[in-house]
Amino acid sequence: MNANGPQSALMEQAVRMALTNIRDTAGGPFAALVVTGAQVVAEGVNAVVPTNDPTAHAEVVAIRSACASLGKVSLKGYVLYSTCRPCPMCLAAAHWAGIDRVYYALTSDDAERMGFQDAHLYEMMTDPGAAHSPIPVQMPSPQAGEIVTTWLANPDRAMY
Amino acid sequence: MNANGPQSALMEQAVRMALTNIRDTAGGPFAALVVTGAQVVAEGVNAVVPTNDPTAHAEVVAIRSACASLGKVSLKGYVLYSTCRPCPMCLAAAHWAGIDRVYYALTSDDAERMGFQDAHLYEMMTDPGAAHSPIPVQMPSPQAGEIVTTWLANPDRAMY
Repeated sequence: MNANGPQSALMEQAVRMALTNIRDTAGGPFAALVVTGAQVVAEGVNAVVPTNDPTAHAEVVAIRSACASLGKVSLKGYVLYSTCRPCPMCLAAAHWAGIDRVYYALTSDDAERMGFQDAHLYEMMTDPGAAHSPIPVQMPSPQAGEIVTTWLANPDRAMY
Repeated sequence: MNANGPQSALMEQAVRMALTNIRDTAGGPFAALVVTGAQVVAEGVNAVVPTNDPTAHAEVVAIRSACASLGKVSLKGYVLYSTCRPCPMCLAAAHWAGIDRVYYALTSDDAERMGFQDAHLYEMMTDPGAAHSPIPVQMPSPQAGEIVTTWLANPDRAMY
């Protein structure tokens, strides 16, 4: 077995999950695994439509499941396998979870071919001046500064 | 009342929620509302630490709650109010939900002052070559192309 054997087997497992998700559910064509070593600690498939949850991308589902079953918020040292390059939501979710590395098979262009605006979303991130939805508009609030001072003054604040 | 009156009142409501979240829970200093007209359809506060869910940012919590209570995946026509500029995860979540507009008070620099890597995350999106975690690495899979063909061949595929 070559050095990539176990990794390839994990990606193939994710690919099979995505195919099953297309065939057996109303979910999207994506699957993901959270892995440590060769051990899968959580699986996720896209469940946006079946669960009415626009955030239920495979990667987010897998990350949430891993943290729930491990009882912790940090997945530092864990690896994410995804059948497709994570969209900005999922890549940022992996970052917040402390995941070091993401392996993916299909590209954002493949996702676009399947009808999903992944490449478009990366453009939205890199060109905030472009006419994309949603449009972030700052609405200064006289009170909002108190959030910063209250947070920084709280010795019990839990960081993540 | 000036034209911004109702909008300012909604932002102030979110600010009060964030302050309460700091004082009364182990959650982060962020809150968000999903709004139509002047009606709040869902609220969210950061619950990452209390729920062991790294995706439980205020905006994601509010979006998930809105979709669950409305029983639909699309929030087209709804507006998101957030006490802070959404991080890439939350901005992309708003995009996937079909939200047209996001009002925010504090900036990503304010978030950085509070200890959160929001500005850093935007850099990660705009400069994929930079040494940021997580590192997305493509692992081509011979089987993965079947996901694309199977998806496109499925007449019942549900888009969102």
